[in-house]
Amino acid sequence: MKKKPALDHVYLNDAFQCSTININLNLPEEESVEGCSKGSKEFILTEEGKKIKPKQQFTLPDCSKNVLRSGYRRIFNRKTLEKRLPILTWLPKYSIEDATSDLIAGISVGLTVIPQALAYAAIAGLPVAFGLYSSFLGCFVYIFLGSCKDVSLGPSAIIALLTYQVTQGSWQKSVLLCFLCGVVELTMGLLGLGFIIEFVSCPVASGFTSAVSLIILTSQIQSVLGIIANGNTFVESWTQIIKNIQHTQLCDAVLGVTCIALLLIMRMLSNYYIGVDQADQMTSRRRLANKVIWTVGTARNAILVIGCCIMSYLMHSEEHGTPFRVVGVIPPGLPSIQWPPTSISIEQAIDGKPHGFIDIVCSMVSALFVIPLISLMESIAIAKAFASGRPIDASQELIALGTANIANSFVQGFPGTGALSRGAVNNASGVRTPLSNIYSGTLVMIALLFLTPYFYFIPRATLAAVIISAVVFMIEIKVIKTIWRAKKSDLLPGIGTFLACLVLPLEFGILIGICINVVFILYNVARPKLSTELFTTQSGVKYLMITPDRCLIFPSVEYVRNFVNKLSIRQNLPVVIDASHVYGADFTTATVINSLIRDFSQREQLLVFYNLRPSICALFEHVSVSQFTVYYQIEQLEIFLKNV
Amino acid sequence: MKKKPALDHVYLNDAFQCSTININLNLPEEESVEGCSKGSKEFILTEEGKKIKPKQQFTLPDCSKNVLRSGYRRIFNRKTLEKRLPILTWLPKYSIEDATSDLIAGISVGLTVIPQALAYAAIAGLPVAFGLYSSFLGCFVYIFLGSCKDVSLGPSAIIALLTYQVTQGSWQKSVLLCFLCGVVELTMGLLGLGFIIEFVSCPVASGFTSAVSLIILTSQIQSVLGIIANGNTFVESWTQIIKNIQHTQLCDAVLGVTCIALLLIMRMLSNYYIGVDQADQMTSRRRLANKVIWTVGTARNAILVIGCCIMSYLMHSEEHGTPFRVVGVIPPGLPSIQWPPTSISIEQAIDGKPHGFIDIVCSMVSALFVIPLISLMESIAIAKAFASGRPIDASQELIALGTANIANSFVQGFPGTGALSRGAVNNASGVRTPLSNIYSGTLVMIALLFLTPYFYFIPRATLAAVIISAVVFMIEIKVIKTIWRAKKSDLLPGIGTFLACLVLPLEFGILIGICINVVFILYNVARPKLSTELFTTQSGVKYLMITPDRCLIFPSVEYVRNFVNKLSIRQNLPVVIDASHVYGADFTTATVINSLIRDFSQREQLLVFYNLRPSICALFEHVSVSQFTVYYQIEQLEIFLKNV
Repeated sequence: MKKKPALDHVYLNDAFQCSTININLNLPEEESVEGCSKGSKEFILTEEGKKIKPKQQFTLPDCSKNVLRSGYRRIFNRKTLEKRLPILTWLPKYSIEDATSDLIAGISVGLTVIPQALAYAAIAGLPVAFGLYSSFLGCFVYIFLGSCKDVSLGPSAIIALLTYQVTQGSWQKSVLLCFLCGVVELTMGLLGLGFIIEFVSCPVASGFTSAVSLIILTSQIQSVLGIIANGNTFVESWTQIIKNIQHTQLCDAVLGVTCIALLLIMRMLSNYYIGVDQADQMTSRRRLANKVIWTVGTARNAILVIGCCIMSYLMHSEEHGTPFRVVGVIPPGLPSIQWPPTSISIEQAIDGKPHGFIDIVCSMVSALFVIPLISLMESIAIAKAFASGRPIDASQELIALGTANIANSFVQGFPGTGALSRGAVNNASGVRTPLSNIYSGTLVMIALLFLTPYFYFIPRATLAAVIISAVVFMIEIKVIKTIWRAKKSDLLPGIGTFLACLVLPLEFGILIGICINVVFILYNVARPKLSTELFTTQSGVKYLMITPDRCLIFPSVEYVRNFVNKLSIRQNLPVVIDASHVYGADFTTATVINSLIRDFSQREQLLVFYNLRPSICALFEHVSVSQFTVYYQIEQLEIFLKNV
Repeated sequence: MKKKPALDHVYLNDAFQCSTININLNLPEEESVEGCSKGSKEFILTEEGKKIKPKQQFTLPDCSKNVLRSGYRRIFNRKTLEKRLPILTWLPKYSIEDATSDLIAGISVGLTVIPQALAYAAIAGLPVAFGLYSSFLGCFVYIFLGSCKDVSLGPSAIIALLTYQVTQGSWQKSVLLCFLCGVVELTMGLLGLGFIIEFVSCPVASGFTSAVSLIILTSQIQSVLGIIANGNTFVESWTQIIKNIQHTQLCDAVLGVTCIALLLIMRMLSNYYIGVDQADQMTSRRRLANKVIWTVGTARNAILVIGCCIMSYLMHSEEHGTPFRVVGVIPPGLPSIQWPPTSISIEQAIDGKPHGFIDIVCSMVSALFVIPLISLMESIAIAKAFASGRPIDASQELIALGTANIANSFVQGFPGTGALSRGAVNNASGVRTPLSNIYSGTLVMIALLFLTPYFYFIPRATLAAVIISAVVFMIEIKVIKTIWRAKKSDLLPGIGTFLACLVLPLEFGILIGICINVVFILYNVARPKLSTELFTTQSGVKYLMITPDRCLIFPSVEYVRNFVNKLSIRQNLPVVIDASHVYGADFTTATVINSLIRDFSQREQLLVFYNLRPSICALFEHVSVSQFTVYYQIEQLEIFLKNV
């Protein structure tokens, strides 16, 4: 078989001594639509062993022309409309089965979201009513804009904690934060910036989630024990807890620990089946029992909260009050629709100082970057978990999230997103479309309208138990072992993020993790691996072959020049640089390679490039790189070396 | 000829069904010393067409063992000592010819550095004497620690401007800045952080230098016109100049413009030869004439300054003073040796407020990163310009620079580095070793001891002319055209840096440029080019071959998964991912590839990897990636596809 049939030519920039210019390139015109519109523009020289005869080039439509027209078309065509209003794709096909499934799923999620809303409001340092305010309007918005059936918008533990760290329990600040986060998310979505979550690697995400879970756990343990211990950092909190442990409220502690135990047992139930594995061999009684068990497991939070609420009510007496600390009065009725507050007067301020709009916004700057990022990460995590390989449109999720948060801010909601726990309930209940959100949203509204008097008796320790039994599974310890085995260096960003999140405000913690990762990338770019081999041609000429394994751009090319010079001075032999893996170069590369060629010509040593992409050849020529020689075929290279 | 002789095997992670495990890898043990100690640790699968029989592996000493012992040896062996004290390499071989050459070069540089020192002190906003204080002790230090014969340490226009922007003309702050920069440089040098200058690409460096030159030009045009126009930004300065143009001092302006014209003419002289090209055919008279012309060209600054000084002295009268603004009184004698000031009392402060140490240091934080970076860049630029391919030790230059600046701060110097103009004079005068610094340093000391009374009459316009005629050539306009032709995208960091430096403090300007470049790198990493081809095997099976052209790490792998999924859903064919160019992967890659494999198995579509490096295979296995298939030979891949 002939070698490199497509690349039978030699390229010399001064004289174009090409035996046959016959380069088979994947030119932009022949590229796939995705590759052309999104990927970098460098093309690839196809290599031998990959092309099999009969060759058949896969030609996809030209996308390099008429960018303006296609941009115009892109904004106004039907496909884009469906992409931006996903309801248009599923509503026309909506069936009665879909409606039944969505109803069941919606009610299941509604029963999950109400206790969660009450509990997460406590994490955000707000009165529990604000949790409910954040849990209905966003759901309705998501029906129109949401692209993932499993996502149920509402408060999330992580975002609640981030909100608390920024607003310190001021509801005005929280609502304004909700509005501003919505604006940032919507803007990012419209600008197509959904890709930024790709810069949060798995180890950083794990480190962040674990740290957040630990912090939430710490704060909720205080509620369970019934002690008040406010520390600013994780270590301070624990010191305070240990110091105040003697003030533990016995009733709260007993109730809390019991609730946690019950919740963990009920959680196990939802994965438990009675009887044989085969569904067709099951009796209807067994099937019913399984269904009951599953329902108890899924609606465990609601069941427990209702149970404890009733118990607390029964134990209540006029003289002694309730034996547990309870949620207390919740203003009945729906929240009023009003603009998010833009300033805080002296009377409203927690710290007794008035705050202007600029003042408040300045204190939120980093959070306005981090909360949208984390919100999107949580939503996308759900989408990914249940999408079974269908591509996810992160930008559309951002648009839905942003609009929902803006809407929520008009009904005094705090920032929310799709929480993984609700996504799992939604999916397990057989959700078919985002319409399930209508039922969960309505359930929250019913709760606000009619149930708030009954919420008075919900013990705080029970809500804390609900949170603890959820976040305890978010601490990822196992992943450390996996990363250790797979790639030890990835532990550094992971553990770095974890520790930074524990000792610093969360938003700086995750930014530090991302920065560590970026430094890794930069190191990777700056220090290519150069493999060196000594070869002898069939005519007996020895030469050094140096192969960089990645692109040569400004942080690495000076290193490569030093490496090549050092080695070539030591081994006074012709040097061939194999550029097969060099997919890109920049202006700095060209100037440094120019110096390298000058170094070699001053030493009167031979330097040849092998398999250098024509695009890079053209770049070198434009920077008037002094005469350089490129070969694309090893046989011709050998002939050249023999004749020198 | 057989294809891929070194890689005849198939790899299946569940059963290791390898026909022949015979991978020819450049394992770390066989790598070159440089590759092993500095490069990334991923190895390269050698490809066909590169290996030529008879194969002969280039084996270099093992460097993976005894790291501790070698580290110990590295610190204390002779070679390291010579690296850290470069004087040990050249002093033993020092000859009389070397001494003569160094003497001539030293005096030439001395005659350049004295007017430069006076002029650059004005850029730094300091009395001219401080320029001289910064120009002698560092030279003596560089003799011992400097690795480049052409570098002459002393004030530089760029560093002087950076100093001015931070210290606003306070000598106490400038001297403290000099000390702290020295400490930062020394620390960075000892930690081997010299590589950071590689993150300043050519376009960013050009943009920065051009902006600095324009700013200096603006400030010196004021001196030439004899008007006082202090603006904070470039635009403000020009507005002020135009506004105050009617206050132009005629004498200063005439002198300044004449001086600039004379300097430019004398500059041209240094490149001008009388008579024939061949040296042997030259008469001794012509040779003498050429030498005189060259000397006039090289010592033009000193000649002009001396000439103008004499003229100014002659035109001076007791009643009317001097027609020009002159330098004025310079305290005679060497500066006292004392600790750099650590605080500013009310009496010393320019702004009438006392400043504590912490206070001053906080105002300098970004400058303490940027000044060492730019100092090193300037020094390395000289070294590179005259090194003719010998590798340059940036860390050693940092150590020399740092020690020199620390020393200078004890004699009230402000930060300095090796200026390119002096480097060029040094080289053109035939310098042989860093010992030439002893003569230029001594000349500055003589000037301080005996010549300061005469410096009184030096017109400020002449000094401004010296600066203008130097910086005007630092504005790089031509490079824009070259970059435009070579790589248009590289204009963005270049022009971005240029504009940012004009409107913001210089240190932020260059940091913005570096950030733009880093974003480019991240985009490159996040969006690999994926080329897609449709192939048909000889047995008629069609399949898609998708080839990513670079590493798959966390910011890109989700994009690749989406791309592959989209394309595979559209074309329901077996998919082969050619990983020949994939040099690295991380933990995130493994988890996402795991999802990709699951996506394919859910669709019951075939996914095969081709030429995936064993290190990445191992990584995938550790993250328990579900069964994946890898082939290293196209024939075996075809057989596999036929049998499926």
